[in-house]
Amino acid sequence: MDILEFGKGVLAQQPFSVLLGAELTQFEQGLAEIQLPLRADLKQQHGFAHGGVVSYLADNALTYAGGSVLGQVLTLEMKINYTRPAIGEQLIARAEVESHGKRQAVCSCRVYAVKDGEEKLCALAQGTVLVTG
Amino acid sequence: MDILEFGKGVLAQQPFSVLLGAELTQFEQGLAEIQLPLRADLKQQHGFAHGGVVSYLADNALTYAGGSVLGQVLTLEMKINYTRPAIGEQLIARAEVESHGKRQAVCSCRVYAVKDGEEKLCALAQGTVLVTG
Amino acid sequence: MDILEFGKGVLAQQPFSVLLGAELTQFEQGLAEIQLPLRADLKQQHGFAHGGVVSYLADNALTYAGGSVLGQVLTLEMKINYTRPAIGEQLIARAEVESHGKRQAVCSCRVYAVKDGEEKLCALAQGTVLVTG
Amino acid sequence: MDILEFGKGVLAQQPFSVLLGAELTQFEQGLAEIQLPLRADLKQQHGFAHGGVVSYLADNALTYAGGSVLGQVLTLEMKINYTRPAIGEQLIARAEVESHGKRQAVCSCRVYAVKDGEEKLCALAQGTVLVTG
Repeated sequence: MDILEFGKGVLAQQPFSVLLGAELTQFEQGLAEIQLPLRADLKQQHGFAHGGVVSYLADNALTYAGGSVLGQVLTLEMKINYTRPAIGEQLIARAEVESHGKRQAVCSCRVYAVKDGEEKLCALAQGTVLVTG
Repeated sequence: MDILEFGKGVLAQQPFSVLLGAELTQFEQGLAEIQLPLRADLKQQHGFAHGGVVSYLADNALTYAGGSVLGQVLTLEMKINYTRPAIGEQLIARAEVESHGKRQAVCSCRVYAVKDGEEKLCALAQGTVLVTG
Repeated sequence: MDILEFGKGVLAQQPFSVLLGAELTQFEQGLAEIQLPLRADLKQQHGFAHGGVVSYLADNALTYAGGSVLGQVLTLEMKINYTRPAIGEQLIARAEVESHGKRQAVCSCRVYAVKDGEEKLCALAQGTVLVTG
Repeated sequence: MDILEFGKGVLAQQPFSVLLGAELTQFEQGLAEIQLPLRADLKQQHGFAHGGVVSYLADNALTYAGGSVLGQVLTLEMKINYTRPAIGEQLIARAEVESHGKRQAVCSCRVYAVKDGEEKLCALAQGTVLVTG
């Protein structure tokens, strides 16, 4: 089984990711991309994605990116800047490993909102991913 | 209508907060508390709350705390440290304003997981809340 | 030798801390306080302490707080919010351990500027401290 | 006067930057690079640059990057991950604007330590820069 299929299987075991409808669309050495269709129930009162949805996506993409080089991991901490309201039909989080040792990785992530096919940066995140077990 | 009832009304207009089942349990000048029963679909594959659930809760509590002194706001940025797996039946996020001017507030938040009635700190967050409009 | 004297000895071995003139004024289980007289050469062009001075102080206080429970450590990452220009004659950073295991601690820090004897919060920080060696 | 010369003039007015010996080596629309020779008095007890030196440099480069598109600014908040001990003869901080509006910019920064001519990433930072006045 390839690494993308493996990653999709892990995501399918996260009830929260299933609830939100996240899809792992890229997963390779040092990189992860997760997409999320922006259903109405993922939005907040102003019509754009709730910050918690955006931070979920960034957190998860950071974890996957770190996991691609470290194996089984968890996100130790994360920082996120919301740069623009997340308006549109889809969110895409792209994370990459910036630096890593044997036990931890520092990863960055950009979250884009796709509206009418155009991607706009709506959040920038960075965090630390740690090996578990 | 008192401020707590007003705040509950705002939360009820956030589809994502309704989806997750968050309840505003305290809301006063400089303080906000939001609770979230830990349903099975808010967990991840290891049986504890998904980091994205915890960060959603922290983000929202920070926004409410800032809003209690500034009015209509949004969270500009946030940083979260996960200190312990969020295991139990309930999450409680308590946020407070640390400092504020007329247009922005810096708030901190502690998220506790409640298991068998005992609260344990599972995350620490801080962020900037900005007036909108 | 008591722990405060030990800590002062460590600070005296940090050339950068000596250059800036930092003094460890409290150091006990879970707590650290470092003070810094605001010399003219620690300021920036607007007459208040340079952000880098404030972040140095927060970083160091976080490290000391973590070290008080973990031994030899380093700061893995830090987040700082500047809440007010650091104007006055002295800076005081007070850090405490919020949560810790055997290998890492999450600590928070408040930095105050003292002007005419009055303390005002000028920064809020939180970070992760890790055992070395 | 070109923008790089203007930026150098601003840096020369920051007593703390003069104390540390920072040099602005690139400054253009959306970008800033600041270098710092690693003098002995900028190190800590283990022989590498003090975290506070690295965070000073990241903070300042973030501010310059933001200032390149916004004019007179200050850094509102910053997050930094130290990825490797900063060993060598020189530090280089490179910051860029990731997103900006009229009043604020979100910038990222990479800090490299140069040893025997080779650059290694030693810190990753991101932060918010705000227009003043």
